[in-house]
Amino acid sequence: MKLLEEKIVKEGRTLGDHILKVDHFLNHQLDIDLLNAIGKAFKERFKEERITKILTAEVSGIAVAAITAQHFKVPVVFAKKTESLNLDKETFEGHVYSYTKEKHYKIRVSKNYLLPDDRVLIIDDFLAKGEAIKGLWEIVESAGAYLVGAGVVIEKYFQGGGNRLREKGLNVQALASITSLKNGQITFLENQ
Amino acid sequence: MKLLEEKIVKEGRTLGDHILKVDHFLNHQLDIDLLNAIGKAFKERFKEERITKILTAEVSGIAVAAITAQHFKVPVVFAKKTESLNLDKETFEGHVYSYTKEKHYKIRVSKNYLLPDDRVLIIDDFLAKGEAIKGLWEIVESAGAYLVGAGVVIEKYFQGGGNRLREKGLNVQALASITSLKNGQITFLENQ
Repeated sequence: MKLLEEKIVKEGRTLGDHILKVDHFLNHQLDIDLLNAIGKAFKERFKEERITKILTAEVSGIAVAAITAQHFKVPVVFAKKTESLNLDKETFEGHVYSYTKEKHYKIRVSKNYLLPDDRVLIIDDFLAKGEAIKGLWEIVESAGAYLVGAGVVIEKYFQGGGNRLREKGLNVQALASITSLKNGQITFLENQ
Repeated sequence: MKLLEEKIVKEGRTLGDHILKVDHFLNHQLDIDLLNAIGKAFKERFKEERITKILTAEVSGIAVAAITAQHFKVPVVFAKKTESLNLDKETFEGHVYSYTKEKHYKIRVSKNYLLPDDRVLIIDDFLAKGEAIKGLWEIVESAGAYLVGAGVVIEKYFQGGGNRLREKGLNVQALASITSLKNGQITFLENQ
């Protein structure tokens, strides 16, 4: 997605060889026009799939999932990272390992909000090692629902998570795929 | 807002006399059509204000802020609860006390995303004792920006936070104001 790649080059910043900061438009300040263009692009890629629900994980997937859902005209469900009084007791659980925080944690969705006849699209802001999507996939499987695929705004292709998910049969669509952040240079996968 | 009150009565559930669960449409599963109607209602209430930025706090304010921002055609900034590698070092801070968790915590916004000439509208899902809005207000003041007001989807009017903020001069607009949750009965403030 050309517009997104241009935005990443113009406003993204690299921290070392692995971190790309895009908090100018994607996960601290939100550029709503860009999110709309992103939502439209996801719709284009999954338009034949009769999606019934969009699934994401808190925190930074929520805005892009909500705006994207307008293009599909379906509800969003976001998996929660913390147990709280307000979460139903009966939940589907997914297991996620955070490489940055070096710990395992659980994400949860109330059993009321994913049903066996749901056709689910996962939406997230970043895909690095694929842990969040793996955890969300586990939740969809526990619900007996059908996982249509995953749409991510930015794939850090060089971290390999996307291709591991594709090898397992998941349709993973990234709107920008980054092959390297070395020396402050952002390089994109061609022919996306 | 009649549509919202009807939704609360139909799909909300009370837990004791203080908690209203609306995770069916507002903070776990998201009803995107309803969020759009909510965004439109906020626009109507603040249309004369030349808003330049919408400010909210993670997690549950993000979806409603993002959808609302489409109606104002301005960016969203969401304050973060956790320090992370990806957050800028230079931040404005607000202090929040969580009555449910019985602890103080900080919320932060990068100094890049709030400027002195910003006219800020705070958007959040719930207003109970007003702590989150108080913390966000502190952030707006630290930035030297102008706080136009706060729009909340549901005010738990009986907890008094909204009126304490109004007494301090803030224009607080709630789309549904609840005066009591006693005995499982949801009662709304009239003439809203």
